Amino acid sequence: MKLRIVALSSLVLAAPVLADEGMWTFNNFPSAEVKKKYGFEPTKEWLDQVRLASVRIAGGCSASLVSADGLVMTNHHCARTCIENLSGLQKKDFNRDGFFAKTLGDEPKCPAMEMNQLVEITDVTRRVQDATKNVAGDKFADAQKTEIAKIEKECATSDEFRCDVVTLYRGGKYDLYKYRRFQDVRLVMAPEDQIAFFGGDPDNFMFPRYDLDMTFVRIYGTDGKPLKNDTYFKWSAGGAKEGELTFVSGNPGGTSRGLTVSQLEDDRDYRLPQRLFRLSEIRGLITEYQNRGPEQKRHSNDTLFGVENAFKALKGRHGALADSGFYGKLRANEDDFRKKVNANPKLKKEFGAVWDEIATVTKKANAMRKEYGALEGGPYSDLFGKARTLVRYAEESGKPNGERLKEFTDSRLPQLKAQMLSNAPVYKELEIAKLTWSLTKIREDLSPDHPMVKKMLGQKSPAEVAKALVDGTRLDQLAAAEPGKDPKTGKPLPATPDTFSRTALFNGGKAVIDASKDPMIEFARSFDAEARAIRTKFENEVEGPLKKQQELLAKARFAVYGQSIYPDATFTLRLSYGSVKGYQEDGRDVKPITTMAGAFERHTGADPFALPKTWLSAKSKLALDTPFNMATTNDIIGGNSGSPMVNKDREVVGLIFDGNIQSLGGDYGFDETQNRAVAVHSAAILEALEKIYGAQRIVDELKGKPAATGAGQP
Amino acid sequence: MKLRIVALSSLVLAAPVLADEGMWTFNNFPSAEVKKKYGFEPTKEWLDQVRLASVRIAGGCSASLVSADGLVMTNHHCARTCIENLSGLQKKDFNRDGFFAKTLGDEPKCPAMEMNQLVEITDVTRRVQDATKNVAGDKFADAQKTEIAKIEKECATSDEFRCDVVTLYRGGKYDLYKYRRFQDVRLVMAPEDQIAFFGGDPDNFMFPRYDLDMTFVRIYGTDGKPLKNDTYFKWSAGGAKEGELTFVSGNPGGTSRGLTVSQLEDDRDYRLPQRLFRLSEIRGLITEYQNRGPEQKRHSNDTLFGVENAFKALKGRHGALADSGFYGKLRANEDDFRKKVNANPKLKKEFGAVWDEIATVTKKANAMRKEYGALEGGPYSDLFGKARTLVRYAEESGKPNGERLKEFTDSRLPQLKAQMLSNAPVYKELEIAKLTWSLTKIREDLSPDHPMVKKMLGQKSPAEVAKALVDGTRLDQLAAAEPGKDPKTGKPLPATPDTFSRTALFNGGKAVIDASKDPMIEFARSFDAEARAIRTKFENEVEGPLKKQQELLAKARFAVYGQSIYPDATFTLRLSYGSVKGYQEDGRDVKPITTMAGAFERHTGADPFALPKTWLSAKSKLALDTPFNMATTNDIIGGNSGSPMVNKDREVVGLIFDGNIQSLGGDYGFDETQNRAVAVHSAAILEALEKIYGAQRIVDELKGKPAATGAGQP
Repeated sequence: MKLRIVALSSLVLAAPVLADEGMWTFNNFPSAEVKKKYGFEPTKEWLDQVRLASVRIAGGCSASLVSADGLVMTNHHCARTCIENLSGLQKKDFNRDGFFAKTLGDEPKCPAMEMNQLVEITDVTRRVQDATKNVAGDKFADAQKTEIAKIEKECATSDEFRCDVVTLYRGGKYDLYKYRRFQDVRLVMAPEDQIAFFGGDPDNFMFPRYDLDMTFVRIYGTDGKPLKNDTYFKWSAGGAKEGELTFVSGNPGGTSRGLTVSQLEDDRDYRLPQRLFRLSEIRGLITEYQNRGPEQKRHSNDTLFGVENAFKALKGRHGALADSGFYGKLRANEDDFRKKVNANPKLKKEFGAVWDEIATVTKKANAMRKEYGALEGGPYSDLFGKARTLVRYAEESGKPNGERLKEFTDSRLPQLKAQMLSNAPVYKELEIAKLTWSLTKIREDLSPDHPMVKKMLGQKSPAEVAKALVDGTRLDQLAAAEPGKDPKTGKPLPATPDTFSRTALFNGGKAVIDASKDPMIEFARSFDAEARAIRTKFENEVEGPLKKQQELLAKARFAVYGQSIYPDATFTLRLSYGSVKGYQEDGRDVKPITTMAGAFERHTGADPFALPKTWLSAKSKLALDTPFNMATTNDIIGGNSGSPMVNKDREVVGLIFDGNIQSLGGDYGFDETQNRAVAVHSAAILEALEKIYGAQRIVDELKGKPAATGAGQP
Repeated sequence: MKLRIVALSSLVLAAPVLADEGMWTFNNFPSAEVKKKYGFEPTKEWLDQVRLASVRIAGGCSASLVSADGLVMTNHHCARTCIENLSGLQKKDFNRDGFFAKTLGDEPKCPAMEMNQLVEITDVTRRVQDATKNVAGDKFADAQKTEIAKIEKECATSDEFRCDVVTLYRGGKYDLYKYRRFQDVRLVMAPEDQIAFFGGDPDNFMFPRYDLDMTFVRIYGTDGKPLKNDTYFKWSAGGAKEGELTFVSGNPGGTSRGLTVSQLEDDRDYRLPQRLFRLSEIRGLITEYQNRGPEQKRHSNDTLFGVENAFKALKGRHGALADSGFYGKLRANEDDFRKKVNANPKLKKEFGAVWDEIATVTKKANAMRKEYGALEGGPYSDLFGKARTLVRYAEESGKPNGERLKEFTDSRLPQLKAQMLSNAPVYKELEIAKLTWSLTKIREDLSPDHPMVKKMLGQKSPAEVAKALVDGTRLDQLAAAEPGKDPKTGKPLPATPDTFSRTALFNGGKAVIDASKDPMIEFARSFDAEARAIRTKFENEVEGPLKKQQELLAKARFAVYGQSIYPDATFTLRLSYGSVKGYQEDGRDVKPITTMAGAFERHTGADPFALPKTWLSAKSKLALDTPFNMATTNDIIGGNSGSPMVNKDREVVGLIFDGNIQSLGGDYGFDETQNRAVAVHSAAILEALEKIYGAQRIVDELKGKPAATGAGQP
C-alpha cells in the first residue's frame, strides 16, 4: 500500500550494472553481467530459443509457447476480452464460471486475437537516420514515416509476417523486428474470475498475493490445425525456490526512464493528473453502471477492470514523481548527464541545447493536447472507433504505402482487417453510456463554443447525440440488414446505403463509405478533416522536432555512458534477469513465496475475497503448502503481463501477472530494494489444473505429451 | 477555458497595494489606498453600515439584507439545499420549477438554515497568544483550544449570539467575532434551476455569462415575525457601469496565499490530486446514478452540483500551481521574504528556521492523512455523520466547555441542535450508494488488512455493509417508530432501544446512546475511540506544531512587510474593492457586461443551455438590452457566493455568484489582469422579478416599501 522508494539504483546507466535492472533487448543482453552476479551466462543459442518460445499478444500482453502443439500460456486478464467476447457470442459467462475445452475440438476461436513470434531482428539505424539527415523538424516525422513504411513493406513479404521498425533509445537505434503472425487463437482453459483476480482491485499490485491469473489458449495454423512448433518452454519439475535465478521474457509496454526533467514535470503536473481525473470519473460511472443489471454488469466488467487497473498503475507513477526523494534522484541523474556533456566542448556544441529544446516542444505539445485528444483521439466509443477506421481505411488504402497514416501501412493491414471483421459482440447500451460521457468531456475540454463541439452536438445534448448515433448505427453488425420489401410485390428491395453491413463498408472502398448514411459513419466523416489537420500539426510541430532532439539525446547518452545500456521499453520483446527475493515494507519482512493455504485464509466469502466453489470443494484434495505466488527482482512493467518466467534451463517456473505497489514508479526508475515482479508459481498452475479443474489433458501436454493424445480426447 | 496567469501582482504584500487585491478585514481596511486609486474614502461609519447589512449563511455562503423587513438576497446555489429540502417535504420540485411565495404567509421555513450578522469585532490576540506562551508543540493545540472556548463562552451570553475567535494571518492575530444569530430563515423566491444555473457545469466559472443565480429568503425573529432591521442595502437605480468602483462584502472561505513553498508543493503533488481523484470518481458515480430514475435524479442533483463545482474549482487551483510561471512567482516571493529575514540577524535568529519546520510538519501530516481521513473524516454519508454527531455529542456535552472537541463548545451548540433536529429529508437509496462507495475508498486507502477496515466490513462487502446500515437505521426519522403491540392485549409496547427517535437520541444523553441498537449508531460507536485517537495524534503532532510555526511566520511577515497587509481568508466577513472591467483572453477583448439578449442567443433547447418556459414566453416583454452579468476586479473566492456588490453609496449594483476561470488560481495569488469576480447585474434582477416572475411584492420591497404592504398580499 505504501509507495516508498527509498534508494534508487542508477537509472539507464553504463555497465557495471549492479542491480537486477533493465529490460534488455535480445541482441544486446548483458550475459557477462549475469554470469558475474549469478554464475550463469546465457549463450546466443539460449537467447534464440527463449526468444522463439515467447509470443506477444498484439493487443498488449505477453505469452509463451508451452507445448509442441501450439499451446500458449498467458494471464487470465490478458484473455479477458476473448473470454468476454465468447461469453457474449455463446450467451454464457465464462469470466464468472471459467472455461475448459474438454477436447481439441471444443476450443473456440477468440475474435480478433493476434499473436506474434519474433523471428528476426535487423539493425536498420543507418537507413532510417539517413532518410532524415538534414531534414527540418517540421518535415522530420513525415520523412521518417515514409522510410519506415518502405522498410517494413520490403520485409513483410506475406500476411504471415508482421514487420515493425522499432525506435530504440528514443531514436538512438532503429531495429527491424520481423514477426511470424498468428491470427487463429483459440481458448483452451480459463479459471473463474474470482480466483484469476482474487482480491480484485484492492489486492491488485499488492503482495503477498494469492492469484491464479492464468489462461491457456492455442495457436492454430492457417490450415485450421494446432500449430506444430519445435521451440517451446518445458515445465520445471519443482518450480523456483527462494534465491533462484529467474528470467522473464516478455513485452514491457513502455517506460519513461529516458525522459528529461522537463518531460517528467509535464508528466507529474499535467499528463498524469489529467489522465487520472478522467480515469477516476469513468471508474465511478462504470461502477454505478454495473448496478443497472446483471447483463450490464457482465458487459462492462472488462471495461471496469481495464480502467481500475490503469488508474492504480498511473496513480502509482504519479506518486513516484510526487515523492521528492525519488524525483530528486531523477533530477540529479540529469544534472550529472548535462554536466558531463557540457564539460566536453565537442559534446556541448553538438548536444548542449537538447534539454531546452525538448522543454520548448513539451510546452507546445501541452497547448495542443486538448484539441488533439478530442478530435484525433476522438470520442470514447468502440462504434465510433470502427466508424473512424472505416472512413480512414477507405481513404488511406487508395494511397501509396509510404504516404498513408502509419496504422494503415501494408504491414499493419492484416491485424486491422481481422479486427474490423471480427464477430466480437458490441453492447449498445454500454456504448451509449460511454459516448454520452465522452461527448460531455469533449465539450468540457474544448468549451461549448468550440466550432467542433457545435458540429458534434448541434442543438442537442451529449446524451441525445449519443443515443441517436448508437441506436441508429449498424456498425455493430457484420452482416447487412434484411433489405426492405416492396409493399406491392413483396419482393426484397436492393440494399440502401444505410443498410450496408460493416463487411460491405470495409470492403467497398471510398465510394461506398461516401454513400453511407449510417449515422456513425456520417458523424466520423463530419470532423475527419479537422482531426487529420490537428494530427498533422502535432506531427510537424511536436513529434518531428521531438524525435529529432531525442535522437541527439540518445547519441549524447551513448557518448557519455557507452553502448551497454538498455533502451526504454517499447512493447517489444525484452529479457530481464533477477531472482526470487523478499523485501522490507514498513519495517517488516515480506517473504517472497505464498502458498495455496493463504488463499483459503484470505477467503471471506464476500467479493472480491470469495474463492470459487470449485476451490472450496477441492480444498481437501489440495497440497495446501504448494507455492502459489512469488515475488522476484525482475525488472518488468505493464505489457509484461503473461510473460513466462523461466530458469536457466529454460523451464517454466512461473507466470508473470503483476508487480508490487512499489514497482509502479518503475516507469521512471528501478529500485531493487523494493521493486518486485509478481508471478504465479508453476507448481500452483499444475496443482490447480489437475486437482481443481480436472484439466488432465493440459497437464499431460505441459509434461510433454502430444496434444492429440491428451486425456479427455474423445 | 484557459488558465493563463501571465502577470502576478505582489502577493500578501505591504502597501502601497497597486492592484485591486485583498480580502480585507473591516477593522483594517485600506481606505486611503482606495481613495488614491478611485477617489472615494470609506469612513468608519460607512464600513459599519456595510458590515451590518451583510449576513453570512453558516453553511458556507454570503448574503445581504435588502429591506427593512428582513429580506435577504443570496445566490440560488446557496439556497439549493433549502430548496431541495422543501421540495422533498412538499413532494414538489422547486429547483426545477422555481418558487415564489405570493404572500408573507406563504414563505416556508428552510430546514436548518442559519444566518449570522457580524455585530462586533474585538482583538483578543494577547490573550490567545499568552495562553500558549512557552507551551510545547504537542500541547499547543490543546492549550489554545481551551482558551478560545473560554473567550467564546464569555462572549456568547445567549443563543441569540454566536461568538468565534478567528485566527487571522494564520496565527498573527486573533479577533473575536460576535454575531447575531438567526435560525428562522424562510424561502421567498427562487427562479428555475435552468436559468439560475444556465450553462450548467460547462459555463460554470466562465465568462461571458448569462445566469440569474439569485434567491430571496427572509429572516424571521424568534417571535415568528419578519425581522425589523434598520441597516440594509438599498437598490441602485441604474446599477453599475463599466469602470465604476464596486465593493464586495462577503465571506471568502479560505485562501492559501500565506503558505510556504513546501506547503504549496504538498498541495500540488498530494492534497489537490488526491481530492480531485475522489471528486472525479464520485462525479462519475452520481452522474450515472441519476439515470436510475427521475426521483433519484432530483435527490442527487444537489450532491452532483456540489461535486462538480468543487472539482472545477480545485482543478483550476491545481492548474495554477502546475503553471511554472505562476508557481515560479510564488517561489520568488518566498525567496525574497526569506532573504529579508536572513539579512537581519535578530529576525534570522527568531524566524530563520520556520520554513524548514513547516516542511517537516507537512511531511508528518502527509503520512497521517489517509488514516485521519478514513477514521476521523469518516465515511461519506449524511446518516453516518448524524450518528457520529449523536455519539460524540452525548459524550462531549457531559464535559466542561474548555475540554470538549471544538465543534461541541457552547458557542457552537445552537447551530448543531438546529441541524440535528431539522426535518430535512434523507434519501436512503442515495445514502446507500454514497456509503458503499465511501467504504470501498476507505478499504482502498487503508488496505483490506487494516484492523479498522476489518472492523468496518467484517466478512461482508462494502455494498452489503452499507445496505444493512442504511436500511436498518432510523436516524433519518426525527420521530420514534410506532412501538410494537403486545400480541395478546393489543396494547402498545414500550419503546425499545432500536426504535429510539433521532430526537430522543439527541436529547437523551450518554445512557440512551449507549443503549441504542440502531445499527448506524453501533457502527459509529465501533471506531469512535480510534477516530479520536488519530485526531488527537494529528492535533498534537501536526496542528499544534504548525500553529506555533505559523504564528512565528506571521510575526516575521509583519516585521518585514508591516501591518498593512490582509490575512488569508477564513470564512469571515471581508471587504474587497474593485471596478467593472473587461480583460483579454487569447488575444481577444472580453467585455465586462453581458445583456439578457445574450441568454436567448445561447439558448439551444438542450440542457444545460435551455431557458425555462417562463423566459421564452416573457421574451417579448423584456428589455433585452438590460445588463445581465458583469465582471469586476474584486478579489473574491468560494464562500463569497451570494455577496452583495455595492457602489460607494452602499446601493446594490450586483450579486456575486462566481469568478472567471482565471480567478481559480486566486487561492494562491491575485492577478488583476485576468482574475475577475462575476455578478448578476442589479438591473437584471429587477427586470426578471417584475416581467418574468410577476414578483411585484419583492420589487416593491427592494424599492423601499414595507413588506407587509407589498403587492400580492392577501
